[in-house]
Amino acid sequence: MKIAELKTEHLDEKAFIREKRDEISSIVTDGLAVNALSGGVDSSAVTMLGHKALGKRLKTYFIDNGIMRYKEPERIRSIFKGLGVNIEIIDAKEEFFNALKGLIDPEQKREAITQAFYKYVFGRLVKKAGAKYLLQGTNYTDVEETLAGIKRQHNILEQLGIDTQARYGYKVLEPLVALRKSGVRKIAKAVGLPEEIYNRPPFPGPALAARVIGEVTKEKIELVRKATRVVEEELSGSGVFQYLAILHEDKVTGIRNGKREFGNQIEVRCWDSVDAKVGSPTRLSFEILEKVADRITGEVPGVVSVTYNITRKPPSTIEAI
Amino acid sequence: MKIAELKTEHLDEKAFIREKRDEISSIVTDGLAVNALSGGVDSSAVTMLGHKALGKRLKTYFIDNGIMRYKEPERIRSIFKGLGVNIEIIDAKEEFFNALKGLIDPEQKREAITQAFYKYVFGRLVKKAGAKYLLQGTNYTDVEETLAGIKRQHNILEQLGIDTQARYGYKVLEPLVALRKSGVRKIAKAVGLPEEIYNRPPFPGPALAARVIGEVTKEKIELVRKATRVVEEELSGSGVFQYLAILHEDKVTGIRNGKREFGNQIEVRCWDSVDAKVGSPTRLSFEILEKVADRITGEVPGVVSVTYNITRKPPSTIEAI
Repeated sequence: MKIAELKTEHLDEKAFIREKRDEISSIVTDGLAVNALSGGVDSSAVTMLGHKALGKRLKTYFIDNGIMRYKEPERIRSIFKGLGVNIEIIDAKEEFFNALKGLIDPEQKREAITQAFYKYVFGRLVKKAGAKYLLQGTNYTDVEETLAGIKRQHNILEQLGIDTQARYGYKVLEPLVALRKSGVRKIAKAVGLPEEIYNRPPFPGPALAARVIGEVTKEKIELVRKATRVVEEELSGSGVFQYLAILHEDKVTGIRNGKREFGNQIEVRCWDSVDAKVGSPTRLSFEILEKVADRITGEVPGVVSVTYNITRKPPSTIEAI
Repeated sequence: MKIAELKTEHLDEKAFIREKRDEISSIVTDGLAVNALSGGVDSSAVTMLGHKALGKRLKTYFIDNGIMRYKEPERIRSIFKGLGVNIEIIDAKEEFFNALKGLIDPEQKREAITQAFYKYVFGRLVKKAGAKYLLQGTNYTDVEETLAGIKRQHNILEQLGIDTQARYGYKVLEPLVALRKSGVRKIAKAVGLPEEIYNRPPFPGPALAARVIGEVTKEKIELVRKATRVVEEELSGSGVFQYLAILHEDKVTGIRNGKREFGNQIEVRCWDSVDAKVGSPTRLSFEILEKVADRITGEVPGVVSVTYNITRKPPSTIEAI
């Protein structure tokens, strides 16, 4: 691996921001750059670094791929508007659902999202904007896990030897690539992002598609989106590292109004972790766990069963796929 | 429903045992009866009632269907030997696995086990023994749930209007049919069974096949048997109603020795309940939950993830399928 880790405890935020701002300026010079903001801490920090470096020469898109959380596009646009950064929301739902059609294997799903993102949607936007550079929020853990073959992060391309210039027509800049998540949070805070962003739990690149086991459809995304909303409402503010809901493909027997209902199961995960390298299940109280289960079975149609993951990472990973 | 419930608090064990003994004697008269002992509290109580009524004219078989818990056949035979009751173990593994081949739907799996049990294995044994009667451990909850269409219990036939005399060549007697599980436990104790039997957690008729989501194979049974052993070792003696391990068909991403492992998930359930009609997840400590997860991921090959069910019944059921 060519990249050296910059440990969070050695991070001088002001110096880092200055350095990255200058670096981005000197590479892009008087050209145009684009970036995609997902609302996660990584892409939010990159958006702010890019805007410090390039001002209006950075065009920031929020790609609404249809696999985002409840009301996510509007919410993120409004937060950045407050910081003086204009975000354009791009409706790409159909492209993403078409790309995911029929796919079951997690790596194929990730690959389809990568392709839809880079080749179709972004290719179009970059051409339209006339940009030669793409800013990306890749961090050190993403690179490490991709190189180890654990998971293919959708934003690792150059580390895999893929020449984005030749393949997609633009060059990728990754200013956060030496930082772990904890370092990224410090930068996000230092560039002026609100706590709701800089302390935000991580959210995977493939978004809710990473939370559906088996084929991803609009209907399944709608179910896992509802379950995610419950989990986030009940567990936010509890100071944990990350919390998520997963829609299983396996069906289980339930009982509703005295009748058998062969229904869905939602798995809830909530992690204690510092940097996502290792983690353990948060020791939530059963009052909270049962409330989460009651709400999910009550509010998400067809869900009759809810589980809580009790495995450490390793051998589990943070996300299921 | 024709059967009236005999509530546990109104149960006079001695009178009940006397009545059922006389009833069985008067029906079977000087004929022969057979019964299948699974080692659960229901079939164990029936075995003892039958032996009180018929002595050696009741032939008790333990059908080793290949989907039993670890060393179950030998263990049960030895317990009953200590009570003066001889059990014959019948090796029917191939018949059951053949019957389950290719089946995914839970009701089809239950039906296949019922068919393999009644039509093939038992038909053969009853003919061989020259018996006209079969004693069965059906209880009141089994009947109720089958009639409500929630679950097809493998031992409910006459309640569904199936004439076993015409269909299988023998008549079924169900001496426990008016009792809930708590009543059956009182009878089991009163007929002299050891606590390890009368306080035993319930175990489903389709055995470990009920604990495998999707197609049941020898390999999957072996995995869920290992997980079940861990769960029983760690949770027995905790005074809970029932505890079980389920092998999911869904695969999830894990990480082992720094490498990605797309592996299996085991779901653990542990219930607080009095009679299985309603239940809630036992509020186990996270020390216990993590130990269970560590042991299962360490001891069961290919398992990278363990969950704990946090749903009440209803809308969940005790078992998954």
